[in-house]
Amino acid sequence: MKLVQTIILKKQPRIIGSYTIVGPKEGNGNFGPYFDYVMKDDCFGEETYEKAERKMLESAVTGVIEKAKLSVKDIDIMIAGDLLNQIVSSSYAARAFQFPFLGVYGACSTMAESVAVGSVLIDGGYFDNVVCCTGSHFSTAERQYRFPLELGNQRPPTSQWTVTGAGSCILSLKGEGPRVTMVTFGKVIDWGINDVNNMGAAMAPAVRDTMLRHFKNTKTSPNDYDLIVTGDLGKLGSEILIDLMEDEGITLGVNYCDCGQMYFKRDQKTLCGASGAGCCATVFNSYLMAKMREGQYKKILFLPTGALLSATSTQQGDTIPSVCHAIVIEM
Amino acid sequence: MKLVQTIILKKQPRIIGSYTIVGPKEGNGNFGPYFDYVMKDDCFGEETYEKAERKMLESAVTGVIEKAKLSVKDIDIMIAGDLLNQIVSSSYAARAFQFPFLGVYGACSTMAESVAVGSVLIDGGYFDNVVCCTGSHFSTAERQYRFPLELGNQRPPTSQWTVTGAGSCILSLKGEGPRVTMVTFGKVIDWGINDVNNMGAAMAPAVRDTMLRHFKNTKTSPNDYDLIVTGDLGKLGSEILIDLMEDEGITLGVNYCDCGQMYFKRDQKTLCGASGAGCCATVFNSYLMAKMREGQYKKILFLPTGALLSATSTQQGDTIPSVCHAIVIEM
Repeated sequence: MKLVQTIILKKQPRIIGSYTIVGPKEGNGNFGPYFDYVMKDDCFGEETYEKAERKMLESAVTGVIEKAKLSVKDIDIMIAGDLLNQIVSSSYAARAFQFPFLGVYGACSTMAESVAVGSVLIDGGYFDNVVCCTGSHFSTAERQYRFPLELGNQRPPTSQWTVTGAGSCILSLKGEGPRVTMVTFGKVIDWGINDVNNMGAAMAPAVRDTMLRHFKNTKTSPNDYDLIVTGDLGKLGSEILIDLMEDEGITLGVNYCDCGQMYFKRDQKTLCGASGAGCCATVFNSYLMAKMREGQYKKILFLPTGALLSATSTQQGDTIPSVCHAIVIEM
Repeated sequence: MKLVQTIILKKQPRIIGSYTIVGPKEGNGNFGPYFDYVMKDDCFGEETYEKAERKMLESAVTGVIEKAKLSVKDIDIMIAGDLLNQIVSSSYAARAFQFPFLGVYGACSTMAESVAVGSVLIDGGYFDNVVCCTGSHFSTAERQYRFPLELGNQRPPTSQWTVTGAGSCILSLKGEGPRVTMVTFGKVIDWGINDVNNMGAAMAPAVRDTMLRHFKNTKTSPNDYDLIVTGDLGKLGSEILIDLMEDEGITLGVNYCDCGQMYFKRDQKTLCGASGAGCCATVFNSYLMAKMREGQYKKILFLPTGALLSATSTQQGDTIPSVCHAIVIEM
């Protein structure tokens, strides 16, 4: 069935396995007990943070293949992306495997983007097993997008903490697990925010746009979902989203939450909460998948959002465009 | 029909329109007469090269929609990527349009990657009209990947010249044009080259891998294609590829050519030839499409290849992994 800009998947690919790996700070956060592997330190035995990030993604792919009781030769393609320039973490991670690689970029929306593209590849009958993966690393993101850690820069109250972690899942028609039933691809939205330490405000309008189109296209409302989860708007961004949706006559109530807002404990000093491609990737592939399999949630609207800036665009005075891809997962 | 890692498209989406825009040097090259628009200067009326690159991509999207006699509201999604950090040229270009955006990254293989993903979205019946676009800019690529232009660095003999240009096409089931019939996604291949001025040698093994799998999966050989076109291996890289394939018992003869090798005239001093995502994107969407429509070529195997490095990975001593996605176009 075809709707304007929303895809209704006919065969409804299943998420037959998921895996998460995080840093120690993330392991001490609210979702700690749900992660598959908590690293002892952020370097993961590597010489640089960039190489640690790459190794996390590689581990997430190896981990999910094992957890789904498949072997590398069962995988038809890996779809992945990350925040580093030229998505090198994903590309270098893919180098370790003997299956094709499709690189995608949606900043922190990458988990939904990869699952969306992967679902289409399965649903259309093109492939059997697709691995989707993304992640981020606090230390690589800080030095690439903002300032060197050594500078000890003060963080403004609107800032968020990039998650050190990677999440992966395998989509297939064979096996058990939550089904991907709908996809709404996001438009690039830019309401003029240019503060790289206020990503929540930059991204909230993109969620608004995708959410409104998704509800309209699918003739659903917030009450049709057990849970509506945004990616990493954080504390401020999710408040802005609630306001923006209220202006449109839509109330986001107790079934609405944001991965960035929920991720860390209060005493972990992350100000507006968590962010990064690894934020919703690790929540989605641990806590959310577990709760769906347990039967607590039957239908989730998952809306990760990415801020599409670069250090160069910031230096050249550009505002921050954002994109939000939505997927619906049903048990 | 499903083959291992090669997709045979059932409905065979058509390329109903294509558009190219290039810089003045490219306009003076071998494909000059085939481009839709040649810019008077590399800045395209913008303050920075980065903004010029973005404007090129935006123009390529506007141009192809007009040329295909469609309007913006007919487009279901735009699939694009480029060489700049966080594919900002594509993201910022997409901001100008009221349709969803799917960001992909495959470095110089992006044209094939976007057409491959777009073809699956059309073939599966999910969307009607998909715009695919990519591009590159000599001056933004030089300063991001290598050295500031102001340094006046000497270029080694193996270096290639990043094309300033963007190419776009529209995929649809309604309309006339060459058909996309097969897709073989690439694996990430790394044979240990670490010289950022020798991309041809880094990328040739990736073409070898995809080409071998494509021939094996589809039970075809070079003689089954009127033309086999690699992306931008350049003069040295394409010679290496011919050698590598000969080692496998496959002769690439007069029906083999490389966009990078052919792009510039000898007196344009580009050493090993052209490169960049804009290289094969502008050849594919101008010369190759024109020759297919004229009936000169009936079946083309198109293999753009991307080097998946970043400036950081180079600085950290990494070798250069590459990927090559193949698509087959038939008239």
